[in-house]
Amino acid sequence: MHPLPKVPASEVCERITRFQAKLTENQIDGAIITQNVDLYYLTGTMQNGLLYVPQSGEPRFYVKKSVTRAEFEASVPVEEMGRMKQLGERLRETFGEVKRIGIEMDVLPYGLATRYLRFFPGAEVVDVAFPLRLLRAVKSEYELKQLRLAAAHVNQIITMLPQYIRTGVSEVELSAQIEHALRLKGNIGIYRMRGYNQELCLGMVASGAAAATPTYFDGPAGGLGMSTASPQGASRKTFAPGEPILVDISTVVEGYIIDQTRMAVIGELDEELTRAYEVTTAIIKEAERMGKPGVAWQDLYLRALEMAEAAGLQNHFMGFGKDQAKFLGHGVGLEFDELPVLARGFEQPLEKNMVIAIEPKFTFPGRGVVGIENTYVVTETGLKSITIAPEEIVRIPE
Amino acid sequence: MHPLPKVPASEVCERITRFQAKLTENQIDGAIITQNVDLYYLTGTMQNGLLYVPQSGEPRFYVKKSVTRAEFEASVPVEEMGRMKQLGERLRETFGEVKRIGIEMDVLPYGLATRYLRFFPGAEVVDVAFPLRLLRAVKSEYELKQLRLAAAHVNQIITMLPQYIRTGVSEVELSAQIEHALRLKGNIGIYRMRGYNQELCLGMVASGAAAATPTYFDGPAGGLGMSTASPQGASRKTFAPGEPILVDISTVVEGYIIDQTRMAVIGELDEELTRAYEVTTAIIKEAERMGKPGVAWQDLYLRALEMAEAAGLQNHFMGFGKDQAKFLGHGVGLEFDELPVLARGFEQPLEKNMVIAIEPKFTFPGRGVVGIENTYVVTETGLKSITIAPEEIVRIPE
Repeated sequence: MHPLPKVPASEVCERITRFQAKLTENQIDGAIITQNVDLYYLTGTMQNGLLYVPQSGEPRFYVKKSVTRAEFEASVPVEEMGRMKQLGERLRETFGEVKRIGIEMDVLPYGLATRYLRFFPGAEVVDVAFPLRLLRAVKSEYELKQLRLAAAHVNQIITMLPQYIRTGVSEVELSAQIEHALRLKGNIGIYRMRGYNQELCLGMVASGAAAATPTYFDGPAGGLGMSTASPQGASRKTFAPGEPILVDISTVVEGYIIDQTRMAVIGELDEELTRAYEVTTAIIKEAERMGKPGVAWQDLYLRALEMAEAAGLQNHFMGFGKDQAKFLGHGVGLEFDELPVLARGFEQPLEKNMVIAIEPKFTFPGRGVVGIENTYVVTETGLKSITIAPEEIVRIPE
Repeated sequence: MHPLPKVPASEVCERITRFQAKLTENQIDGAIITQNVDLYYLTGTMQNGLLYVPQSGEPRFYVKKSVTRAEFEASVPVEEMGRMKQLGERLRETFGEVKRIGIEMDVLPYGLATRYLRFFPGAEVVDVAFPLRLLRAVKSEYELKQLRLAAAHVNQIITMLPQYIRTGVSEVELSAQIEHALRLKGNIGIYRMRGYNQELCLGMVASGAAAATPTYFDGPAGGLGMSTASPQGASRKTFAPGEPILVDISTVVEGYIIDQTRMAVIGELDEELTRAYEVTTAIIKEAERMGKPGVAWQDLYLRALEMAEAAGLQNHFMGFGKDQAKFLGHGVGLEFDELPVLARGFEQPLEKNMVIAIEPKFTFPGRGVVGIENTYVVTETGLKSITIAPEEIVRIPE
């Protein structure tokens, strides 16, 4: 049917096995999976339908559209979904009685959930999204390979910066150049976020005061954006000498997202911003050292907070004042906001091959945002960076 | 705080009044609004929080992040959301007892919905998304103005085509050029779809067999896409003489989306495809004539089906065989999949100033997709096109 690479069948098989172990561990009889990214992860295809995964035995993907494409791409058995009315009966016939049913509580809309739950009268409803996200947080060799390819693409972007950044060029002009270059390398132009209402276009090119404009987005730097209808990211503001220029760029290879931030400046940053930037690099080095299997997710955040406080910058850390984001880093993979979350209250341990974007940043209202971001994989000896761009500030002569 | 244009306060006030009339009509005591686009529509800001709209009296927007930006942009009263625990109490104190509470059942995730519904013990839960979408379907003069600006941008894209299309250029190369040009005009690069799991990047540049590849997307043309992880839209396939090249392009101005499809060909289309294309233009002319206030949404679809059948093309209409989409057009505005839906079963009447993208297309597996699309506004004398690009096939010499 088509020449695109498929997710290896062995990969899908391994994922289903690990997911079924999670179901057993949580005493869940079966799970209904419906969200496009979860479907892709567990079947190898992103077609529209309902995947039923029993605690043991073969899963089945009931597909609405396109059955033809799902049959070609999926590594699990595919059936036509047919009418909603019969689907409940077919599920009960095939998989038997269900006492505890798992659904993706964080993404499945209320209306659709109540319709699906009628298939399992009397069953207890539990969340299956968190266990699944926990499993997805640990990457396979296949997944790490896609992330490394994506890292090479965003590295090349950094080499473009001296050519495009100069006084009077706007954030969106630079962003458009970067988007164009990444698109030709295969970027899909969709950055998937799981969080309700969270969305992103390419990432952030944001400078000076515009970068420090607060926004709803759960990240350290908001950005002015192009309109009140997309209140984040690049704006029409033009670059000026001495301002921090944040180039927070992502790309996607075979669905896998890499996240990287570098700084540029025309001329020189002033002393206070330079010092703040040095604190962010010290924080990221400390995280690299600490990030070993067994360490609690929150520990990296709490240590970063201590370091920000020691530098007298706690009120500027990850946003300013009331608009501070309360984390240091986030998992990336098929989605931008994967687990782990490096934030207070997350006492879960890091595991080998978790992938995390760590992004210490300081916000100075009216002046800008400084910081750095790499995407890392957790290893026995600490975090190893997947992103490969040089970490120095890109300096453009005035 | 910032220089971006705001949604006029009179616009927001008018929307709230119309929405409250819908609440009264449906005997709903109050509505919880949480989705970013609905929030933007009813407040003028897209910050993160919960808007409570009572059947009468002033609404209140409880904001999580960013309060500062919401206070600056919103035309409704803003309060800090504070802790979830107290929010229920504050709502009950401010707005009194609630017997029927409305939520956005189509988009609000199950987990979040169950938490919010605890604020209203014993209340009957009803959907408020459909009435709100119905109200949003009718555009104001302010909204039509944004759509006309967007239409001018996508018109300019069509004039670029002869410069970029030639044998050996890939779909994604043309798409990247178009994206770059639209981005510089202010396109936000996010195409909002309300439907669960529905997503879009810029739109479709798709040619020959690749265009006819089926996909999950609820549209007439799927497209091969860049990977199984984004199985729709432009691919790396290169253009060849005689193939239909579909340029289904959208852009966004102040949040408002325009949707337009034009065709190009290197050399000539064969007779069968040319004839099919002529049927799509006949269908769209018939829709223009029929689309007056009071006409049922489904009537335009059923008439188009008749015309496809009369031409012996019913099996190719809006996709092929099992992968056919079952509609002729869809509302556009802040989202890509607004009301009205021109499809069987929708007996609601068209209203003046509804805005609809109409896109008759025929799919020929292995050969391509032909068709046309305009965005229209409903007037007393029929549909009036907002899109202004010439409708002729763009012919590129071989």
